[in-house]
Amino acid sequence: MDYQNIRVVAFDADDTLWINETIFNATQEKFAGLLEQYVPRELLMQHLYKTEVRNLEYFGYGIKGFILSMIETAVELTEGLIKGGDIQMIIDWGRDMIAHPVELLPTIRETLQKLHGQYELVLITKGDLMDQESKLARSGLADFFKHIEIVSDKSSVQYQEILQKYDYRPEEFLMVGNSLKSDIMPVLEIGAEAVYIPFESTWEHEKIDLTPDQKSRFESLENMAQLAEQLSGLKG
Amino acid sequence: MDYQNIRVVAFDADDTLWINETIFNATQEKFAGLLEQYVPRELLMQHLYKTEVRNLEYFGYGIKGFILSMIETAVELTEGLIKGGDIQMIIDWGRDMIAHPVELLPTIRETLQKLHGQYELVLITKGDLMDQESKLARSGLADFFKHIEIVSDKSSVQYQEILQKYDYRPEEFLMVGNSLKSDIMPVLEIGAEAVYIPFESTWEHEKIDLTPDQKSRFESLENMAQLAEQLSGLKG
Repeated sequence: MDYQNIRVVAFDADDTLWINETIFNATQEKFAGLLEQYVPRELLMQHLYKTEVRNLEYFGYGIKGFILSMIETAVELTEGLIKGGDIQMIIDWGRDMIAHPVELLPTIRETLQKLHGQYELVLITKGDLMDQESKLARSGLADFFKHIEIVSDKSSVQYQEILQKYDYRPEEFLMVGNSLKSDIMPVLEIGAEAVYIPFESTWEHEKIDLTPDQKSRFESLENMAQLAEQLSGLKG
Repeated sequence: MDYQNIRVVAFDADDTLWINETIFNATQEKFAGLLEQYVPRELLMQHLYKTEVRNLEYFGYGIKGFILSMIETAVELTEGLIKGGDIQMIIDWGRDMIAHPVELLPTIRETLQKLHGQYELVLITKGDLMDQESKLARSGLADFFKHIEIVSDKSSVQYQEILQKYDYRPEEFLMVGNSLKSDIMPVLEIGAEAVYIPFESTWEHEKIDLTPDQKSRFESLENMAQLAEQLSGLKG
């Protein structure tokens, strides 16, 4: 890939800059434990996933919607027998998730430090507004970014709006993220560049299958250090 | 008040452009009805309010946090006896609130139409990102606004950031809203102008007491038509 024209590097946040899916997975495991007397693990996970996806149009992405979907799933699968104290516990888990320390992925700070000054850096993330703002503040990374965009969804429409808002041309814009569905494909669709850095775990809803032709249109890297090397080499 | 220098007029959304608190109040009434066998109305409302305020730092403003606070209140005040089906009903009410038709307040459309072109119009609202976006889209008002800012809170810090972002000078900026705490006082604090148009109902947490001196620093109007008249007269 040729990044010679790139002037703006945009980063996804959850599972690109810091750990996120891991925290959801750990809570799901507790949830499975809580309901194991009522329902087999596999069935529970399937039902939870269906509930989450159905609720996306009402509650959007983020922890609050996840808590509500766990509660709904618990009520439905126990046929209303779930105890009040267990519901309370689910809400407590949600607050724990929100208060969870921000754990940066390896080499993130060094990478941003290296690219900052060479490129205009932008953060584009989806999820609950306050939660994302709080994580960014606690990450200590906020000052690296010229613009912060917290959006309700990441389709090509949203990317198009961001590019227009800041007057970025597609050919000078590179998006870096861990989700093919949210960070890579919609960005390629509007004619910009994208670099895929997968995280160890991906939420089912973010998974998509690509054709070989689609795969050939972007680069996959193993970690952020590789990105820093490639990009900062260009400005050397 | 002298609005001669005003170039940018910013509007709050909930209970300024469209009805909101009324929908929360109606749901609270249903909630009181649901729990009347367990707890007196007054005590329930007090407990719900305390829970909502305590949860603000985790869940922020908006319907999802409100649903979670109702569920917590129900579990706590029934000592866990609340039935699963009732919890489900509370979540259903939340989805109903989110899907509730957007009801514009009187003369909103005409006012925006009148001021559009004469002033740069901006929307500044807090709450759940997706919910606010959806309401704005359904309101049919989106095209009147040059910028849309959905923020997690409305203190002077957030207003300062918005003014800096768009390069507005305080003396050319006027905020219009129904909350003294969120729309008026923080805006006056940064040296900009504010017009207060109260709604028939205000959430307890948005209420503040003002000194006569503070009251003298902004204008209170009864409705949006009065605002349109004053402001568009200046550009006549």
